[in-house]
Amino acid sequence: MEFAELILTPKLDGVVLHGPFMKPVDGTLCITGHHLILSSRKEGEEEELWLLHHNVDAIVRKPNGELGGSLVIKCKDFRIIQLDINSPEEFVKVATSIERLASLEEPTLRYPFFYRPMYPILEDGWTAFRPETEFSQLVTSQADEWRFSYINKDFSVCPTYPSIVVVPKSVDDETIIVAANFREGGRFPVLSYRHEGGSVLMRSSQPMTGPSSRRCKEDERLINSVLGPGKRGYIIDTRTQTLAQTAKSRGGGFELEAHYPQWRRVNKPIERHHVLLDSLAKLMEGCNDSLSTMDRWLSRLESSNWMSHIKDTLNCACLVAQCLDQEGASVLVHGSEGMDATLLVTSLAQVILNPDCRTVRGLEALVEREWLQAGHPFPIRHARSCYAPTGGISGRGKSQAPTFLLFLDCVNQIHQQFPCSFEFSIHLLILLFEHSYSSQFGTFLGTCEADRVRLKLADRTVSLWSYLNRPDVLQSFLNPMYDPNNRVIWPSVAPMSLTLWSELYLRWVVDQTPQQEAWRTITELREHDKELRLKATRLRRQLADLEKEAIEAGILTPSMLPQPQEVLPPPVSAEVA
Amino acid sequence: MEFAELILTPKLDGVVLHGPFMKPVDGTLCITGHHLILSSRKEGEEEELWLLHHNVDAIVRKPNGELGGSLVIKCKDFRIIQLDINSPEEFVKVATSIERLASLEEPTLRYPFFYRPMYPILEDGWTAFRPETEFSQLVTSQADEWRFSYINKDFSVCPTYPSIVVVPKSVDDETIIVAANFREGGRFPVLSYRHEGGSVLMRSSQPMTGPSSRRCKEDERLINSVLGPGKRGYIIDTRTQTLAQTAKSRGGGFELEAHYPQWRRVNKPIERHHVLLDSLAKLMEGCNDSLSTMDRWLSRLESSNWMSHIKDTLNCACLVAQCLDQEGASVLVHGSEGMDATLLVTSLAQVILNPDCRTVRGLEALVEREWLQAGHPFPIRHARSCYAPTGGISGRGKSQAPTFLLFLDCVNQIHQQFPCSFEFSIHLLILLFEHSYSSQFGTFLGTCEADRVRLKLADRTVSLWSYLNRPDVLQSFLNPMYDPNNRVIWPSVAPMSLTLWSELYLRWVVDQTPQQEAWRTITELREHDKELRLKATRLRRQLADLEKEAIEAGILTPSMLPQPQEVLPPPVSAEVA
Repeated sequence: MEFAELILTPKLDGVVLHGPFMKPVDGTLCITGHHLILSSRKEGEEEELWLLHHNVDAIVRKPNGELGGSLVIKCKDFRIIQLDINSPEEFVKVATSIERLASLEEPTLRYPFFYRPMYPILEDGWTAFRPETEFSQLVTSQADEWRFSYINKDFSVCPTYPSIVVVPKSVDDETIIVAANFREGGRFPVLSYRHEGGSVLMRSSQPMTGPSSRRCKEDERLINSVLGPGKRGYIIDTRTQTLAQTAKSRGGGFELEAHYPQWRRVNKPIERHHVLLDSLAKLMEGCNDSLSTMDRWLSRLESSNWMSHIKDTLNCACLVAQCLDQEGASVLVHGSEGMDATLLVTSLAQVILNPDCRTVRGLEALVEREWLQAGHPFPIRHARSCYAPTGGISGRGKSQAPTFLLFLDCVNQIHQQFPCSFEFSIHLLILLFEHSYSSQFGTFLGTCEADRVRLKLADRTVSLWSYLNRPDVLQSFLNPMYDPNNRVIWPSVAPMSLTLWSELYLRWVVDQTPQQEAWRTITELREHDKELRLKATRLRRQLADLEKEAIEAGILTPSMLPQPQEVLPPPVSAEVA
Repeated sequence: MEFAELILTPKLDGVVLHGPFMKPVDGTLCITGHHLILSSRKEGEEEELWLLHHNVDAIVRKPNGELGGSLVIKCKDFRIIQLDINSPEEFVKVATSIERLASLEEPTLRYPFFYRPMYPILEDGWTAFRPETEFSQLVTSQADEWRFSYINKDFSVCPTYPSIVVVPKSVDDETIIVAANFREGGRFPVLSYRHEGGSVLMRSSQPMTGPSSRRCKEDERLINSVLGPGKRGYIIDTRTQTLAQTAKSRGGGFELEAHYPQWRRVNKPIERHHVLLDSLAKLMEGCNDSLSTMDRWLSRLESSNWMSHIKDTLNCACLVAQCLDQEGASVLVHGSEGMDATLLVTSLAQVILNPDCRTVRGLEALVEREWLQAGHPFPIRHARSCYAPTGGISGRGKSQAPTFLLFLDCVNQIHQQFPCSFEFSIHLLILLFEHSYSSQFGTFLGTCEADRVRLKLADRTVSLWSYLNRPDVLQSFLNPMYDPNNRVIWPSVAPMSLTLWSELYLRWVVDQTPQQEAWRTITELREHDKELRLKATRLRRQLADLEKEAIEAGILTPSMLPQPQEVLPPPVSAEVA
């Protein structure tokens, strides 16, 4: 297919753009295969808007008869812009073109397949966080406990798992294959994280017990093998008891205590799918209504339930972390498919427990391991966002959900509560949010590793990590207040401790410039500090050299030297990167 | 009266203290004339609590039969502590003692009359912000427009005004005396602030028009005199139209357009008195319930209306600031008595308009001018706070109100929105909150200047400013991100721009340690920066001296010198203080 067929109006003059925090811009609209571009050529005030079609979540046509009309474009990054077009024909053509381009389903037509970076790639993000390197230390140092399994190398045992997974050494591949058959979608229990004390975090999908409470000895053996003798573990089910119960009639189910006597089951429900998306939609509706009263705003915030979802999620993640850290007990987390709420919980528990996850590379690795390689189907979940109308072909359906955004928001909440414990700033979280919905990079294309292999993403597109890990880019996402903290950090989940992530949800509504200035000031102070230390050290060396020369030449005796150099003040907390 | 009569139990061993963020402390309770002291003498973990009786807002007795009982002490600084006492007799005696001491009415028995500082007073805060110095520049530079008036030197014209006020030059004292008779409590229109362009902000109480719409030519002449020829001004009434109307039946009223044709009246209502205190009580009830659900917390936050009061107040202050700055029009603000909502608006308008008010001394001067000298009756308004039960002798009544706290919260909101525009940190606002309710200093004693003179506060007590303006104390309240900004700053009043002041309302509920660490890191970076610059400069000088010597001695020629010293990087934004 040619993009040209879809583009009814490639170029149009005299289009007026209205956007947040800007004066209206009168300019030329260009529609290309991947971008909507509006540029004003006014001398001295060139303004340019580049918008990926895939970023468009909803288009509202507001025709105005013979005068043309206004096109309201609502983006997945929450921005809302408006284009005024002064011809009725062009109005329809532009609207139709954008609608068509925004709803292209074929992934290989997406921009990442066309994007070529202008910079050399120093480190290929596609190979930066492979399981064999991520877990190599664990598998080597705990060689009697853990091993790599390659049973899924052709994705036949579990289509949504990566080709390499970490499983208990004492369990052979045959057992795993049988256990996989007992779990929805073949998502058998795999290692997610091993905590310092040796307690482990595993995740899976629900067991397919069905109405007759079928059991599977191999599944039992697989998970029992991670418990020490006499030890008990926890199974955290992210569904309500009722939901777990009704799942049985559809072939699913939960672990019966009779069959898993070493495990204690706890239901810790987290909402999922369209309930989350509806919640986000309500939240954003409230955020975008800057003329509302305080009462109305607060009541909308409450009725959106978004903050409650954050609280529930953090609550569950804290429970998991407590089991692992304070009870030294191993935990298996699952809900139904184990691709949404499950990942939310296992990834957040690691942010709480594992200081590595609070570094830039650690967060990247976590997103790779627990979201991308774990098979969270980004292209499906993020096909539409909160502005898309409900139902219809281009509307939002039951399979779309902002689960990953909920994860990022929870990390943000912990970041707010522990502002010095993260190497990255919250801007990195916002970047991940944006790219997970629409991007020039291929990282969030593909629903799972099998899909990414099929699409040849590693060969045909650039990884977000290749871009992000370039030193100058990385630098701009560092937290100048970072003071590495090796402890477990326990976020407060009291409702008043959790606050709306204004830097994200309100960024197109409330001007963030003064906050950005404050952030820049702190960053500059940190950089300045480094620079000054360097200068002072260099000066001191020059002085010492010259003194030595002067003493050798006899024009100076050691006693004539000025006071010994004072020691430079120690650096403030730890230096960043 | 002797304190000894009130103290039934001066000392008691084996009392257990429970407080926020601390383990229970078993220690000795001492009750002195002004303090409740609890100290544990355990080797290595001495803990001491010193609490001013005047800080106690409410005491809840929880007797437990023969075992004694628990005393819950709720403080005006929002802290809640509990004392467990293991004897029923002592339980009653301690409770009675604290109740008596906490409700002493006589101001001269308060701690400020007994407190003697351990440090030399470098600058007397009592004379630091007198009207004659505060307005001296204005009266000199605008000598044809403004003059000091001493008609109130014996507080006979207006008992709640200071002895010196600034009035228009063209209006004589006789006119003012007549106008004062026409305003409630004699609070005639006085100058509050003159904006750059010449527009002025005045404040007063309501005119006593009564049901017959009485007029007063002198009052009209007084306020008309500040308008330029053909210019119009605004009268901002902080009451609803209805409230202003009903005030007429009680002798009060508002300026009829027929009599004040040059002025446009606008009603911009702000709540006052017990409505504000009830609002704060509800807010704090919500804040202290850390076990509530998210829904319940948000719904309590909404129903408390506290955030709405902030919005209304900022809204009104912004309107006043707009009139002054953007329309260049003068403004008169009043409600009924002109001692609460009026001061809230005139002081906040200055924070928005006048960069001086965003410095430490400027804020102190603002609090002096617009609150203390303007006669906000602190001892009455702050006699009880949000924890005191409603009604009764020791309960809260109609005359108590957290108006000043609302002011501080609004400043905090602007501070959050413009984090680099204030020389002080929000900790200064919290300090002002605390001392305005209970303090070792005399600043917030006395309902007005006449009262302060009567109590001889300047001779018999220490001023808060004497303490605060000592360099080492001041240092700890500076904002390391301060970048002086001479512009007017326009806060957003959209409801989602305003957030709960967690550093204040949640400080005994949510642990603030990580936030304080972040703040300390920034402060250290700033200080470190200064120190390093100093060191580098000194090293460079030593090097230059030695080079000169070496050249003179002939062991060095200028061409042999190392690369010329690079310029030190410029300081980050402006240096603080």
